[in-house]
Amino acid sequence: MEYRLAELAALVGAAVRGDPARLIRGVGDLEHARPDQLAFLASPAYRRHLGATRAGAVVLTAEVADDCTVDCLLVEDPYRAFATLSRLFVELPLSVPGVHATAVVAQEARIHASASIGAQCTIEAGAEVGERSVIGAGCRIGAGSRIGSDCRLWANVVLYHGVRLGDRVTVHAGAVLGADGFGFASGPEGWEKIAQIGGVAIGDDVEIGACTTIDRGTLGDTVVERGVKIDNQVQIAHNARIGAHTAIAGCAGIAGSVRVGSRCRIGGGAGLVGHIEVADGVTITPMSLVTRSIGEPGTYTSGTVLQASQRWKRSALRFGELEEMNRRLRRVERLLGRAASGGHETEDTAGC
Amino acid sequence: MEYRLAELAALVGAAVRGDPARLIRGVGDLEHARPDQLAFLASPAYRRHLGATRAGAVVLTAEVADDCTVDCLLVEDPYRAFATLSRLFVELPLSVPGVHATAVVAQEARIHASASIGAQCTIEAGAEVGERSVIGAGCRIGAGSRIGSDCRLWANVVLYHGVRLGDRVTVHAGAVLGADGFGFASGPEGWEKIAQIGGVAIGDDVEIGACTTIDRGTLGDTVVERGVKIDNQVQIAHNARIGAHTAIAGCAGIAGSVRVGSRCRIGGGAGLVGHIEVADGVTITPMSLVTRSIGEPGTYTSGTVLQASQRWKRSALRFGELEEMNRRLRRVERLLGRAASGGHETEDTAGC
Amino acid sequence: MEYRLAELAALVGAAVRGDPARLIRGVGDLEHARPDQLAFLASPAYRRHLGATRAGAVVLTAEVADDCTVDCLLVEDPYRAFATLSRLFVELPLSVPGVHATAVVAQEARIHASASIGAQCTIEAGAEVGERSVIGAGCRIGAGSRIGSDCRLWANVVLYHGVRLGDRVTVHAGAVLGADGFGFASGPEGWEKIAQIGGVAIGDDVEIGACTTIDRGTLGDTVVERGVKIDNQVQIAHNARIGAHTAIAGCAGIAGSVRVGSRCRIGGGAGLVGHIEVADGVTITPMSLVTRSIGEPGTYTSGTVLQASQRWKRSALRFGELEEMNRRLRRVERLLGRAASGGHETEDTAGC
Repeated sequence: MEYRLAELAALVGAAVRGDPARLIRGVGDLEHARPDQLAFLASPAYRRHLGATRAGAVVLTAEVADDCTVDCLLVEDPYRAFATLSRLFVELPLSVPGVHATAVVAQEARIHASASIGAQCTIEAGAEVGERSVIGAGCRIGAGSRIGSDCRLWANVVLYHGVRLGDRVTVHAGAVLGADGFGFASGPEGWEKIAQIGGVAIGDDVEIGACTTIDRGTLGDTVVERGVKIDNQVQIAHNARIGAHTAIAGCAGIAGSVRVGSRCRIGGGAGLVGHIEVADGVTITPMSLVTRSIGEPGTYTSGTVLQASQRWKRSALRFGELEEMNRRLRRVERLLGRAASGGHETEDTAGC
Repeated sequence: MEYRLAELAALVGAAVRGDPARLIRGVGDLEHARPDQLAFLASPAYRRHLGATRAGAVVLTAEVADDCTVDCLLVEDPYRAFATLSRLFVELPLSVPGVHATAVVAQEARIHASASIGAQCTIEAGAEVGERSVIGAGCRIGAGSRIGSDCRLWANVVLYHGVRLGDRVTVHAGAVLGADGFGFASGPEGWEKIAQIGGVAIGDDVEIGACTTIDRGTLGDTVVERGVKIDNQVQIAHNARIGAHTAIAGCAGIAGSVRVGSRCRIGGGAGLVGHIEVADGVTITPMSLVTRSIGEPGTYTSGTVLQASQRWKRSALRFGELEEMNRRLRRVERLLGRAASGGHETEDTAGC
Repeated sequence: MEYRLAELAALVGAAVRGDPARLIRGVGDLEHARPDQLAFLASPAYRRHLGATRAGAVVLTAEVADDCTVDCLLVEDPYRAFATLSRLFVELPLSVPGVHATAVVAQEARIHASASIGAQCTIEAGAEVGERSVIGAGCRIGAGSRIGSDCRLWANVVLYHGVRLGDRVTVHAGAVLGADGFGFASGPEGWEKIAQIGGVAIGDDVEIGACTTIDRGTLGDTVVERGVKIDNQVQIAHNARIGAHTAIAGCAGIAGSVRVGSRCRIGGGAGLVGHIEVADGVTITPMSLVTRSIGEPGTYTSGTVLQASQRWKRSALRFGELEEMNRRLRRVERLLGRAASGGHETEDTAGC
């Protein structure tokens, strides 16, 4: 894998400053890249490394190029250009077309000849695996599940029965798609299980992180639309629908029947309670809890700011007294009359 | 799988309104059910779909039956009746009694003849699998672990050694029972491991979600009592005890030696710190943190409400100043005298 | 496994009070230990069990020894002494050196003759497993990954390619090391993947919990230094670095490029956002969110205290009005003049 700088420039529409014939054999970060590697500068936080970089070339914007002492690729969005170029240099383990001798594949399964089924996989009746898809070692593909073309399932992924993946879907190790939704009705002798009869439908170009779980629908499918990116340890419950190109960071939890719009960003560890709707273009910051539908795009937060615990304890104590503090403040305002309430009586009917 | 409406009615003690001979071949939701399917209406939020439903019949209460234009099953608790009826129509993948040729089963293991051991399972010495239990592909059953009758372990479940499951226990894919508890003593050269010598005991009729982890006890068992339902990605630490019929939603974490009562409801992402006790009948709302024992049934919450982030930032800033705000309010009250403090001096000794 | 009390005392530098020849055959807790078992007392919370214990001997400090009616081992740190002694009595499942017949091991892999490779493992080309290391059933070891000596991987662990473990590393079942970091650049047609080219480097004496995920670096490694202890269901993102002897409790999440110092304690469910640095010796309490670098050792917290939900709702409502409450208080203070503001004008420029 080696490319001349001019070739790389052409791939991302960059202008070359320096030697277009320079050979690039890999990528690295500004601080550690070697003279045959390409680095990039997208965030001002890393600009301090630009002067001393030993990279062969740096992808950056024209504004900062003058500080660069090595060759440059000038682009408008260095992070995106680097994304494209980085993929030229990734070396994934080889996968050989065909079914490994130790895999257990039901006769009724349909595996494309160009697909690769890893060691000790289990593929049940009626399952399908499309062209060039790679199924890692120890994966379990349930009855009637369908995997499109150019998918990659890493090791030990579990697809229950009735799970459908589009094309170019990546699922990382240990993820589980199609387990029963958490549906129980309360009865006199305990919980009564609601049968989970729906499936899971994953769109094209979705990526799903390690140990992430996406439950099957109760009736009808749990749906993840095209282009969605899901990090590790995320939980998506039965009958949720995640809109196209939404990104969900690690450890987030989406409860049952939630509808998340497209191009949303759900922060790490955030939670959405059941049966709510979130509009397109909403950002939820990390570890925030969403308990009501959100109708407008924008950024939303819950929680408090980190403090030294001794100081936090005092704030937290007063938080528990806020209603009382508000009453005390109202009492003071009344004593002081109209001037204290800004020249008009407040309309707060909760006051004492 | 097809049933006459009268047969279904008999199973849940419902009154039929309409044609008792109508054939039902499946279940669906109000909005999408077909004329040979049964739907239900339990929540007012979905009542708007009742008028237009094409379902063959709907399970609902007598109060709303007049709005229903198709056949009805009248019951007091439609959600629970539907739970019972839904299970008639679930089609699980077939499991054949016997041990799959690729499973590795220790000679000293005892597998009931009616049990089904899936492909590429590993079952170690002294383990037992009871009548009609189904062990999915790729499960690992440790030495001396015991699985009762009518259990189902989905694919890639791991039971360490010394884990006991009762009867009718379901464990979803990727769950891990019996890993070491997180026990270390601080020493001059780092952490010293405490041996984790206890086991895990799971009662009858428990369901455990995908990628959930339940650690073995340090000394003595970690215990999950009968009828408990646990969602995906839950963590239950060493020596915890979960009371009968408690439900724990996704991503919740229960720390070491916690005792949770029976019929509690632990919300998604909630956390319980170690060595506390929670009474029977307690509900913890999603993502709340429990740092002290709870002696009374009821519903408990921590955290703040979601706001647009710009507005939240101002609230969060003031949260950090709450102690100071309280002091300022006390100063104002003192200036204004007894009238400001409601006619009596407050007893807050933390005041300035 | 049996030891005389004098032998145990010698291992931890304890003074024996009682019969040095007493035989000890196991460990237990104060409440349940039998006469041939050793118990310990480290926390005042359990002192009430001391008088009635039936243990053969108890590890405790001299201060409380007079309340003990059975034999004692007197030490300064009973918890640590018990940790050391507990490990004498743990009975792990036997592991036989050699490669199980059902494992699939690439010819180019290097497995030490004393190592044990479990049933249905997959070990890819260029991987190495060191002396006496035990690889559980169903583990997947990617191309070029290296496992040191005296490691133990429990069942169904996945190491992607390019993951390196030091010596004496324990990885619990279902953990995934080396999955792609969550790196995407936003483009006009959706997210563009950043190739994840780095690896994972785990130091000596690290323990990693069940279903924990540690992603590979984008460029360069994700690093977990020696002696770190990580609980279950933890997520560590690409290019994070965790300092030596830090402990991370269950369900915590560490975002990308975070640097955590040494001997830190990260509470259960806590979250650290990306690109921050945490000094040595910092404690983060459970479910706290860290959004900025922490330069000083100490204990830090975010969130609020649990309340009965009805009461909490009022506090939470007022939290959303805190900025307005502060303005109202400022207005009152101005009306009352210098005396109200403690004899000096406050400098809060945010006031009305």
